[in-house]
This record gives sequence, structure tokens and C-alpha cells, in this order.
Amino acid sequence: MWFEDVLIGTKRDLGSYTLPQDEIMTFARKYDPQPFHVDLEAAARSMYGGIIASGWHTAALWMKCLVESGRGDAAPDGIVSPGFEAMRWHKPVRAGMSLTFSTEVIDKVELKSRGDLGLVKRRNEARDDTGALVFSFIGKSFVPRKP
Amino acid sequence: MWFEDVLIGTKRDLGSYTLPQDEIMTFARKYDPQPFHVDLEAAARSMYGGIIASGWHTAALWMKCLVESGRGDAAPDGIVSPGFEAMRWHKPVRAGMSLTFSTEVIDKVELKSRGDLGLVKRRNEARDDTGALVFSFIGKSFVPRKP
Repeated sequence: MWFEDVLIGTKRDLGSYTLPQDEIMTFARKYDPQPFHVDLEAAARSMYGGIIASGWHTAALWMKCLVESGRGDAAPDGIVSPGFEAMRWHKPVRAGMSLTFSTEVIDKVELKSRGDLGLVKRRNEARDDTGALVFSFIGKSFVPRKP
Repeated sequence: MWFEDVLIGTKRDLGSYTLPQDEIMTFARKYDPQPFHVDLEAAARSMYGGIIASGWHTAALWMKCLVESGRGDAAPDGIVSPGFEAMRWHKPVRAGMSLTFSTEVIDKVELKSRGDLGLVKRRNEARDDTGALVFSFIGKSFVPRKP
């Protein structure tokens, strides 16, 4: 996939993942041990009324689905991602929810500094069973230009 | 901690974490199964020359150290984080590296829409054994104002 072949507006479904409660708690015990992620009773008493997933867990699941879909951009050798912007968690993710992930090209930028690369911006999302947005961020990646 | 007590320039050490190779591979097999995260031989042949951690793993380790340090902002009930900006991975994170995490207040914004809350911006970082920056992002959080 060359930069020239990337079309603004192209949206790809990256698949779905149903998140079990034990996975939420296992991830959070290791990486985000706040009571509303790891303790059933404390979570029930919290503002969330039950266990919710760590925001980083939802982000990692987006990556899982991107990689397993085979639809990520192949980074050119030696080029590091220019990073992410506007990462937001819009709604709590609860045990048993099925999350559906997507990525959509929203912008392309020709780089004056690197004639061999273009910058592609994508809006990445996770939505719940009802279609409500739960997580989103803008990803940026360098994509090789046609020689 | 009230909004009024937060001082721009305050930097907090969140502790360090030495990342074992098996943890890199366990995380990545589940959440980011790219060859240079999960396959020793493929990683050795890759542009990285060996196994590196998933960027989401480094991010999750920052969260682990924040929570375990007890130095996160206590979010007011019912208020969701306004999210993160400028998330960047500056250098690959390799097995056995000791990462040191920090958070620094870089800005405070009084909200016209919510007299009971202020917005605090922090620059969050991970650095390697040599002090080189490997990961950074800007975190935003709502902090209650003095009644």
C-alpha cells in the first residue's frame, strides 16, 4: 500500500472482541490496580456501579484487533510512528461488552522534508453493542510514496 | 488535593520498572502480536535487531507506576478524563531495560463552564537507564476547586 493509494474516507472494520470480567481484572491487577477495575465490591460501591476495564486495556484491544486484522500500515524500516492525538474514553467498558473496532483515513499530508514518505491520519474507534462510541483517538503513520 | 494547590512545574517521580523479556512477549501475544514483539528470531532479523515492547505495554507500565505511587489525581465522581494528547514513542523499549516514570504539571486552566472544576495538564514521561526519553504524552484531568 503506497501513500498514493490511501484514500481519505476509507473506513475499515477491524473486528470485534467480547471482554470477559476475568480478563479485565487480570489486566488491571498488573497495570492499573484501581479498585473499580480489580475489586468487585469496591467497584459496586464506586461511581461506576461495577467493574469497568482500564482505559489502557481498551486501547490494547484496539491494537490487538488492528494487528489480527492484518490491516495496519507497514511502517517503513527505521521510521517510528509520529504518535497519537486526542485519545478519549467516552463511556465505561464493562465486563461482557462486545467492542467493535474501526479505523478511517481522515487526512493525508505530503511531507516537504521527506519526499519518500507521506503522513496518513486516521480516526480510530471502539464502539459498544449498541453502536455507542466508547474510545477514540487520532493515529498518525508514515506511509511510503511510490518511487 | 484541590485545583488551587496544584502548582505548575511540580514534577513527581512515579518509580521505576525493569521489564523482563517474558513479560514483553506475554503482553504482545495477547494484545500486539507483531513479529518483533513475540518472535525472537523474527525480531533479531527486524529493523530493531531484537525483541521490543509493544508501545501499549510501555503506556500500561506508566499507568501501573502512577497508580502504585498513589500520586494520580482523584477524579471527581461522574467526571470522565478529558483524555490525552501528543502520545509519542521516542525509542524502542528492550527486554531488561529499567524504565523510570514521571509526571509534571505544565498548565492549569480555569473552566468557565464548570466553576467547581479546573483542568490540569501534565507532561508524562518514561526514560531509560541512561535518562533518554522513550515515551511521553500530555495527560489532562479535571481537579475539584475549593468550595
